[in-house]
Amino acid sequence: MKVAKFGGSSVASAEMLEKVANIIKSDAKRKIIVVSAPGKRHPEDTKVTDLFIRLGEQFISGQAIEDTLGKISDRFLSITSELNLSDDIVLRIKNETRRLLNETSNSSLLLDSLKAMGEDSLARVLSAYLNHVGLEATYVNPKDAGIIVSEEPGSAQILEKSYSQIYNLRNREGILVIPGFFGYSEKGTLMTFSRGGSDITGSIVAAGVQADLYENFTDVSSVYCVNPFIVNNPKEISSLTYREMRELSYAGFSVFHDEALIPAFKANIPVCIKNTNDPSAMGTMIVAKKEDNGQPVVGIASDKGFSSIYVRKYLMNREIGFGMHLLNILVEEGISFEHAPSGIDDMSVIIRSDQLTQEKEEILNSRIKNELKADTISIIHGLAMIMLVGEGMSHRVHVASKATKAIAKAGVNIDMINQGSSEVSMMFGVQEKYLDQTVQHLYNEFFIS
Amino acid sequence: MKVAKFGGSSVASAEMLEKVANIIKSDAKRKIIVVSAPGKRHPEDTKVTDLFIRLGEQFISGQAIEDTLGKISDRFLSITSELNLSDDIVLRIKNETRRLLNETSNSSLLLDSLKAMGEDSLARVLSAYLNHVGLEATYVNPKDAGIIVSEEPGSAQILEKSYSQIYNLRNREGILVIPGFFGYSEKGTLMTFSRGGSDITGSIVAAGVQADLYENFTDVSSVYCVNPFIVNNPKEISSLTYREMRELSYAGFSVFHDEALIPAFKANIPVCIKNTNDPSAMGTMIVAKKEDNGQPVVGIASDKGFSSIYVRKYLMNREIGFGMHLLNILVEEGISFEHAPSGIDDMSVIIRSDQLTQEKEEILNSRIKNELKADTISIIHGLAMIMLVGEGMSHRVHVASKATKAIAKAGVNIDMINQGSSEVSMMFGVQEKYLDQTVQHLYNEFFIS
Repeated sequence: MKVAKFGGSSVASAEMLEKVANIIKSDAKRKIIVVSAPGKRHPEDTKVTDLFIRLGEQFISGQAIEDTLGKISDRFLSITSELNLSDDIVLRIKNETRRLLNETSNSSLLLDSLKAMGEDSLARVLSAYLNHVGLEATYVNPKDAGIIVSEEPGSAQILEKSYSQIYNLRNREGILVIPGFFGYSEKGTLMTFSRGGSDITGSIVAAGVQADLYENFTDVSSVYCVNPFIVNNPKEISSLTYREMRELSYAGFSVFHDEALIPAFKANIPVCIKNTNDPSAMGTMIVAKKEDNGQPVVGIASDKGFSSIYVRKYLMNREIGFGMHLLNILVEEGISFEHAPSGIDDMSVIIRSDQLTQEKEEILNSRIKNELKADTISIIHGLAMIMLVGEGMSHRVHVASKATKAIAKAGVNIDMINQGSSEVSMMFGVQEKYLDQTVQHLYNEFFIS
Repeated sequence: MKVAKFGGSSVASAEMLEKVANIIKSDAKRKIIVVSAPGKRHPEDTKVTDLFIRLGEQFISGQAIEDTLGKISDRFLSITSELNLSDDIVLRIKNETRRLLNETSNSSLLLDSLKAMGEDSLARVLSAYLNHVGLEATYVNPKDAGIIVSEEPGSAQILEKSYSQIYNLRNREGILVIPGFFGYSEKGTLMTFSRGGSDITGSIVAAGVQADLYENFTDVSSVYCVNPFIVNNPKEISSLTYREMRELSYAGFSVFHDEALIPAFKANIPVCIKNTNDPSAMGTMIVAKKEDNGQPVVGIASDKGFSSIYVRKYLMNREIGFGMHLLNILVEEGISFEHAPSGIDDMSVIIRSDQLTQEKEEILNSRIKNELKADTISIIHGLAMIMLVGEGMSHRVHVASKATKAIAKAGVNIDMINQGSSEVSMMFGVQEKYLDQTVQHLYNEFFIS
């Protein structure tokens, strides 16, 4: 049995839904379908979920909602009419929206219910359309599917007990179409997951029913081994492990919500990233273990926007607790750190720059100076991080050598190297202005030559 | 004006003291001499300070001391008789020791006073011998020299106010011979520095009198660029900066007590390491700044005996404070860490293995598991650290590349790379069994080819 999840761009229009139906039809094992709300049809388009959020905010601030509601129903109407389906669903959206606005006093619960309407309505449309093309299909509400979540509007967490209930979906006849993005609390109140939550639903359902495969249909044929905005026509990754995926998703690899895959990973369900527009392409498999193919590096992740807080104090290494106190100041200031390379008398802490403001920097400066009696403190911005990822690199002597040679060839100075905790990654820090050339040279070294 | 300090091996015998006198005689600028207690004359010999410690411990535990006192006086007697000096000093040692044993009730103060007798007596011997060979020389007691320290027997700290008093030594006539290793509290009680404390006295006096040069005479002609027990006949370092010295002294470079040099460093006094047995050799200069000679790496330090505590937890990077909490557990268990490389979901802490016992490991395991809810914890022993040091490497792109290439050539896997905090060092972790071959290849790469 396969669980197939279709993302927003895969269900954005009637034309896309026809492709989705063909994909489902072509493989009888695709028994459980999880859908997003209609996404963008073109770059200037608005996602249906964003329209629902706008409508909710308009209502809460006392503005007219009719224009927005009209846009939402037009969006669905264009789908149902092109697919020759009844417009009952469009009518239902209007009525249900008005009912929610009238009956829900708590504004976070109202927003959650409105946001969920995009997925919910699309699941109803797809189920009707699958019936229309001769497949036995049923819309299954998440409550009915057994998706029980914590009482946290907008950031609900799945409850462990859900999985045994979800397992029972295996006994249902025909194709089941489940809207992604939300579940119900034990009290029966609708709660959404965090943004990107259709991926969470897909992964939870795949784990619950113990699927043979969880297919994640999106608008790319596979995961690239490097950011395609940096390297032209990069190679595709045919297979990677959960650990590699997790490391790659750290920076730049935003094909999907990586944390969403955790339920599937924990249940050992293989995941396949596939393209709705090119379903015959192999896609990228994400698996627990894979055979060593002699390729030490599977992908290169990179991102800009890091800063370094450098602290120097003579005899630092004799002071038990210096590092801890430094990190504690960061914790107290609400700053999470990425890396903390240290020398004998100095320590640097690499953080995401968006956590710093001018004011915050001044606070850090004065706290580190006063509380730690540091000799020197400097905060440097404009750092980029590059991560080489691959299960094969833990015991390959030559990876560090090849990587540093490639960076030297790019004419770039390495500001930081961090290797030694994760067995599947190696991290380099360079100045942002050198990021592209560094990544290009690393790509050439590990994927071309 | 120069301050010259002679270490234990330089004053171990009459023959050595003759060399010392010749060195002093050969340069009229050598006005202030600081001495250690007589050290070992051959590998099986016992240092005079260790004899004094044994004597003190025997007395405290109610054992007979005569045999040990006999050994001490014989040791000095052989020096004075060979140098044709009066044996007053030997008599004084016996009387003074007995007086101390009778009059000092506090055992830490007694031990401190006994330990200091080695340096004190040798300073008296040398001063007498310098007079004997026709030089104007005076023994100067540290109290008289103005060395005022904190009230901490065995680990006294210099008080800032000492420096202005020490400055007055400039006005004294002739050569001044000051025993190293101890000072006096404001109450006038004798207190020793930590072990190796003659270096501390030398450095303090050099800073206090604002010497043109602080000469540290020992038994090597200079500092080697790599451990001579690993590499045969390694090159000598002619000049290095304070920062380089500090980084190199971190592991393996135990030519002297590196922290002892801090007073000299802070006062910007150049330091020269010289060989009592070969005073015409250039030695190694340690200076605040030096010219870039195009050599990025000045030395390679290395040491064994490290362990790694590896902690993995899914989604660790989303948890603000995880790293801090981990380090806090170490602080609470009294463990200081050397490095803490981190991945996205894992963190390793590198520590000196001698801080761990079986019991301590179990405590750490259970605290990290229970308090941090870590998924995996593993403690690995048998790591070695190798540090490349050089002011020239901060902006030389090729250092990391050359180093990793050399390690690859040695056929050794790199377990850890830490670069990015200190501008003058780069650290590699390898398994202990690979240490020698790694260091040899790095030496070949940076010093031979």
